[in-house]
Amino acid sequence: MNIQTDARAVDAVLLREQDDSIAILTLNRPAARNSLSEDLLNALFITFDDIATDKSIRAIVLAANGVAFSAGHDLKELTSRRTDADGGRAYFKHIMTTCSAMMQKIVNLPQPVIAAVQGVATAAGCQLVASCDLAVASEAARFATPGVDIGLFCSTPMVALSRNVAPKHAMEMLLTGEMIEADRAAAMGLVNRVVAPGEERAVAVALAKQIAAKSSHTVKIGKEAFYRQRELGLAEAYAYASEVMTENMMARDAEEGICAFIEKRKPTWEDR
Amino acid sequence: MNIQTDARAVDAVLLREQDDSIAILTLNRPAARNSLSEDLLNALFITFDDIATDKSIRAIVLAANGVAFSAGHDLKELTSRRTDADGGRAYFKHIMTTCSAMMQKIVNLPQPVIAAVQGVATAAGCQLVASCDLAVASEAARFATPGVDIGLFCSTPMVALSRNVAPKHAMEMLLTGEMIEADRAAAMGLVNRVVAPGEERAVAVALAKQIAAKSSHTVKIGKEAFYRQRELGLAEAYAYASEVMTENMMARDAEEGICAFIEKRKPTWEDR
Amino acid sequence: MNIQTDARAVDAVLLREQDDSIAILTLNRPAARNSLSEDLLNALFITFDDIATDKSIRAIVLAANGVAFSAGHDLKELTSRRTDADGGRAYFKHIMTTCSAMMQKIVNLPQPVIAAVQGVATAAGCQLVASCDLAVASEAARFATPGVDIGLFCSTPMVALSRNVAPKHAMEMLLTGEMIEADRAAAMGLVNRVVAPGEERAVAVALAKQIAAKSSHTVKIGKEAFYRQRELGLAEAYAYASEVMTENMMARDAEEGICAFIEKRKPTWEDR
Repeated sequence: MNIQTDARAVDAVLLREQDDSIAILTLNRPAARNSLSEDLLNALFITFDDIATDKSIRAIVLAANGVAFSAGHDLKELTSRRTDADGGRAYFKHIMTTCSAMMQKIVNLPQPVIAAVQGVATAAGCQLVASCDLAVASEAARFATPGVDIGLFCSTPMVALSRNVAPKHAMEMLLTGEMIEADRAAAMGLVNRVVAPGEERAVAVALAKQIAAKSSHTVKIGKEAFYRQRELGLAEAYAYASEVMTENMMARDAEEGICAFIEKRKPTWEDR
Repeated sequence: MNIQTDARAVDAVLLREQDDSIAILTLNRPAARNSLSEDLLNALFITFDDIATDKSIRAIVLAANGVAFSAGHDLKELTSRRTDADGGRAYFKHIMTTCSAMMQKIVNLPQPVIAAVQGVATAAGCQLVASCDLAVASEAARFATPGVDIGLFCSTPMVALSRNVAPKHAMEMLLTGEMIEADRAAAMGLVNRVVAPGEERAVAVALAKQIAAKSSHTVKIGKEAFYRQRELGLAEAYAYASEVMTENMMARDAEEGICAFIEKRKPTWEDR
Repeated sequence: MNIQTDARAVDAVLLREQDDSIAILTLNRPAARNSLSEDLLNALFITFDDIATDKSIRAIVLAANGVAFSAGHDLKELTSRRTDADGGRAYFKHIMTTCSAMMQKIVNLPQPVIAAVQGVATAAGCQLVASCDLAVASEAARFATPGVDIGLFCSTPMVALSRNVAPKHAMEMLLTGEMIEADRAAAMGLVNRVVAPGEERAVAVALAKQIAAKSSHTVKIGKEAFYRQRELGLAEAYAYASEVMTENMMARDAEEGICAFIEKRKPTWEDR
């Protein structure tokens, strides 16, 4: 194992390690249940932005320190701005826009992002899990969108949640605010795997390494195409994906990968 | 318990009670398996329309008397119009348009609507369940879209059904017309909870009361945003939801709810 | 049983039988794991095109000979064109466009298509299953989109896959390339039924016959409406489906079917 701590994008609130070609980001505001303060939102955005062009990173694991994965927005920080001249409106808009941009950054990153959920993920914390490409949850993990209980409906979290699970499941979480167990989250499609407590990070890293062993050019093409084609009608999606496949066939890694498959040998990828 | 019968929107075919802030509507054509005659469609539409602006109602339970929840359209009534000069076309169009408007009324209501399904829900009866925000089913409930068996494909029911469950599940129901059990309906995402026979109404009312204890302003914002953002692409959905969150933050109930949360006390909502 | 082999669309690579009103198509390149060579893609396209206007066919079963259902594109055939003047680009585009057109042909056929999956269905083979209206799988069937392992991301397969299953399930298959078991495929929504090995074809044919006993006019209306309304917003979908229902009511088979239902007798369909 070759773990390095990279100083560039590290902030006290977000830890960054590198394990071979895997970036492991750890939410590190455990005393505040890893709530997404402005600092933490910015640290996530800047770190994702940095990783987007970092060829040494082939997959990302997003983990958290402490008992909670993330409790969502930092309500104390938001509340402190109610004394602004505009009652906080400009600041609230800034935070919501920043948070939405950060969530979309995950979707738009070339590398896959895998959540390792060790505890409770609520509101924008649940949205963070929903926004990742894949998620591994501990049996101790639980999920909720409880904004409705404090008068602030989880409207931005619902964007990610409702694109992960069936509408009645999303509505149940959004209207009741109740916690759902990891197993039900897996059945709903919110997480991919449920593992014994304490193993979620190792399993997520192993999954990341499995993906990192593949051609990163190919993974990048595929992840981008996945989210683009989702928003198209069937005929448009096929027209677009056929173009992607044709371009992909012309790439060096497809030529090598297909040759290796036919010759029954292991392929060697361009950037490895 | 404080149950009142409200004469305004009550019709023989649809019973309306009020239990605290919960409206309980009961389909009451048991001898006709609660088929959606023109009278019943109109009673539902008018009642929902009335409730939409009724601040005393914070959630709705939709139940049914008799062995069936609803058998869908009233085929005898429809057939009786085949002797019209146009063979019934204008009347059929009127009924289909009225029914579709009623289903969309449920979606557009500010209050959540919870189906309490005690028996068989077929065709437009199944659509009615799919159109509700949440659904509680008895173990005795069953679901089907059997129009295909009588030469009238469940095309309007499929609009709601296919927005609730995976396409192969929807297609299986639509092409075979077969009944599916409550447990499978839950696994598919068509209902939220399956309970012992006879308990579905009480469980639905309890769920309604749980939601009614929350800020109704917040629930209204959230329900509206849920259905609007679903039809948008990801970037548009986030832009829209960020605006909704900002406005929500400026509302009195969010200020109170967040303060109460920080101060570890129960919030008091504006309209309570 | 009245099985005929029809010479018109039969090719060595695709067998066509007729069992009453059911067309049974069998992928027949077992030594090549039923990979979708240009010949096989063309045979499928032409056969579907022929069946589209064949009133004697009321449902289609798509099965396969050998241990694999289909391994996707024929990689040797594709690779052989890398020596073309353009490095194969025009040919690759031709194949991807042909394959996408064939998959959409299934969706656009008036008759339902039921996959009978006896073995491994990978890449475009998995897409073929996802593109069918219904699927019956053997317990021995397994599913994967392993293009990522050979540098060629399953971008066209994802179009069908991501319209069948939840996004995190699709992403897991696409990014890891791992096989999923038949039971998990059923839970995800990729197949409708899992049966004992060797029974998948008989069960698919029985399901096809069940559907074939219904009015084919009605099935055609419904299948077309299903895929069209899916791509519309809710209000548009209801406006469209209400028109479809009204027209459907005016059709002879709806009149007969509804009368028969009211009179408690079996309907007789126009084309039976």
